[in-house]
Amino acid sequence: MAIITLTSDWGTRDHYLPAVKGALLSRMPDAVIVDISHEIEPFDLNQASFVLRNCYHLFPKGTVHIVAINTEADLENPHIAIRHNGHYFIGTDNGLFSLMFDTIPEEIFEIDIPQDSDYFTFPTRDVFVKAAVHLAKGGAMEELGDPLLKLFERMAFRPVISGDAIIGKVIYTDRYENVFTNITEGLFKSECRNRSFNIEFSVSRYRIRKINKSYGDVPEGELVALFSTTGNLEIAINKGNAASLLGLGTDDAIRIQFG
Amino acid sequence: MAIITLTSDWGTRDHYLPAVKGALLSRMPDAVIVDISHEIEPFDLNQASFVLRNCYHLFPKGTVHIVAINTEADLENPHIAIRHNGHYFIGTDNGLFSLMFDTIPEEIFEIDIPQDSDYFTFPTRDVFVKAAVHLAKGGAMEELGDPLLKLFERMAFRPVISGDAIIGKVIYTDRYENVFTNITEGLFKSECRNRSFNIEFSVSRYRIRKINKSYGDVPEGELVALFSTTGNLEIAINKGNAASLLGLGTDDAIRIQFG
Amino acid sequence: MAIITLTSDWGTRDHYLPAVKGALLSRMPDAVIVDISHEIEPFDLNQASFVLRNCYHLFPKGTVHIVAINTEADLENPHIAIRHNGHYFIGTDNGLFSLMFDTIPEEIFEIDIPQDSDYFTFPTRDVFVKAAVHLAKGGAMEELGDPLLKLFERMAFRPVISGDAIIGKVIYTDRYENVFTNITEGLFKSECRNRSFNIEFSVSRYRIRKINKSYGDVPEGELVALFSTTGNLEIAINKGNAASLLGLGTDDAIRIQFG
Repeated sequence: MAIITLTSDWGTRDHYLPAVKGALLSRMPDAVIVDISHEIEPFDLNQASFVLRNCYHLFPKGTVHIVAINTEADLENPHIAIRHNGHYFIGTDNGLFSLMFDTIPEEIFEIDIPQDSDYFTFPTRDVFVKAAVHLAKGGAMEELGDPLLKLFERMAFRPVISGDAIIGKVIYTDRYENVFTNITEGLFKSECRNRSFNIEFSVSRYRIRKINKSYGDVPEGELVALFSTTGNLEIAINKGNAASLLGLGTDDAIRIQFG
Repeated sequence: MAIITLTSDWGTRDHYLPAVKGALLSRMPDAVIVDISHEIEPFDLNQASFVLRNCYHLFPKGTVHIVAINTEADLENPHIAIRHNGHYFIGTDNGLFSLMFDTIPEEIFEIDIPQDSDYFTFPTRDVFVKAAVHLAKGGAMEELGDPLLKLFERMAFRPVISGDAIIGKVIYTDRYENVFTNITEGLFKSECRNRSFNIEFSVSRYRIRKINKSYGDVPEGELVALFSTTGNLEIAINKGNAASLLGLGTDDAIRIQFG
Repeated sequence: MAIITLTSDWGTRDHYLPAVKGALLSRMPDAVIVDISHEIEPFDLNQASFVLRNCYHLFPKGTVHIVAINTEADLENPHIAIRHNGHYFIGTDNGLFSLMFDTIPEEIFEIDIPQDSDYFTFPTRDVFVKAAVHLAKGGAMEELGDPLLKLFERMAFRPVISGDAIIGKVIYTDRYENVFTNITEGLFKSECRNRSFNIEFSVSRYRIRKINKSYGDVPEGELVALFSTTGNLEIAINKGNAASLLGLGTDDAIRIQFG
């Protein structure tokens, strides 16, 4: 049974999402179609890469992930298919995939197949569906087009080490207003080396001095820092709204001061 | 494998949608249920017809489409099943279907089957599910009730030709604030005849003088007109919000002045 | 074909929902996964219990319902599996299930299985998925852990009989702003005994003197009371917004004065 997932900024009111599902089922009636998210902010490649990066690996190997954000292609940003970690990804090489993977993917192919429409606004329906079904049926990547050596790069802001501090930033806020930063557990541990620390925010005088393993480790309404579901440092309030309380939004700075 | 789609104004928080899915799966455990949209504005037949019209044909022939907007029946607005273009539609004859199809559907039958509940507020669960499963299993339309010769008509505002101009109106705004009008590509071409033209808006002094094939044909932030995914004239801003910038909403006038 | 449903307060933008779907499909590729609702207000056990109670019984017997609200366990609130009315439920014993069922469930077992992660913030992915797949494949409840005799109780406010009146309260408002109360049809009938009555609201001078069977029993824009889809007294406005007009929200009082 082939699984095809969909990630987009379409929302769920318009005709875009069901059009793609209909087109998929017309070509592959037994495809299992799973929605990753369609509530990505319009055109927001960072948000899309965060959501997909934190769930795709839980799907069975061989799953095909269609990524439909800013899909119109041009010479510098072709439609591509990727194989990486046993998963397939189909989308436009607009930088999103460079944000998703920490290394160059194992295989990248340009998608060069005829589309069904004279218009170029809906390649997900007119191009990606065909490519996804091709891969889901066991077709070879090579048949989609020519190999590419690397991805179009979009610069991700990496945390900076400055003396005894890590300076990172907020990259995502979830429905509970838990705030996720670009500081990974690996980086934190390699810098911390069992020293004491203060997690500080650019726009608030609150401090956190401990990493916990669950929200419930602190009383309701109190701040908690943990790595949890993503491997990224997460700032939350147990049953509360950290982003609002701390005045934090995407790109705001987070500083961990050691010693 | 039978596909049954669902279009409604229920939203996705309440018990209505899962109740219907449960009832469908209880009667047909291997049904493939696909959501078209549940974010239709409450009671908005125009919006529902726009969304479904622009995606149903992409599903495989034989798909059964349940349409659950204003479903309570009365003498003038019975529950009906429709066969058209190889697809089945089940809903209430409240005018929505007259907005969806350009011609009288091939077959229309009143649905006259006993319902499971003493209440009449939820015919989707109590009537449409049975009818949909009947058709999805290959049952005959005739077994649902008596044939009807025509649909309850709701007047769609058609574009008007006035001298050297087409006067249409906005019928839908999508998540990106792209604005869709009731001016079709066919009408535009038959009136344009390679003349130059100006697309004008009632509430804004912006003008568009060209039809493009993709949003990216214009720089980011600029206006673009195209036919694209629906066959209806669409006004967009590349990576922007046309409805807000132009002050356009449903029913606002759009004028194409030729020559 | 095994059906597994999901109820949560995750919303549909973040990685939580697709992570769980991926984990389910990795363990059981032919599972049929159905979303009940993910738009439950964060941490709102009452809302979750209302939605699930009013739809779970429509699914086929043997369906496994994962309930993911306030899932972190502690000594008083363990992870549990329930069998009741031929359905399975998996979640945390935080009081939600005591709100869902009118009687003690037929079987309750604590879930005591190793989890895959060092973190305790996402037991749905790390614990519930395993338990759900175990049950969906026909595994025994007993293999999950030790039996429990009763649920953690959260006090539901029950309607009060006061002289010739029932005093209840609002427990849910749906997308149409129809208002649902905790007054059941059974209670109403046993108190009414064919007497005349007035339905009164704490914050509005409107009155309703009749129970109807459909919204369309009253003209558009007028108030209607009915039992309909839930068995609970529902106050609506035909094609209108009862909650706004009446100024009613969760926990506001509703009084039925008889005689």
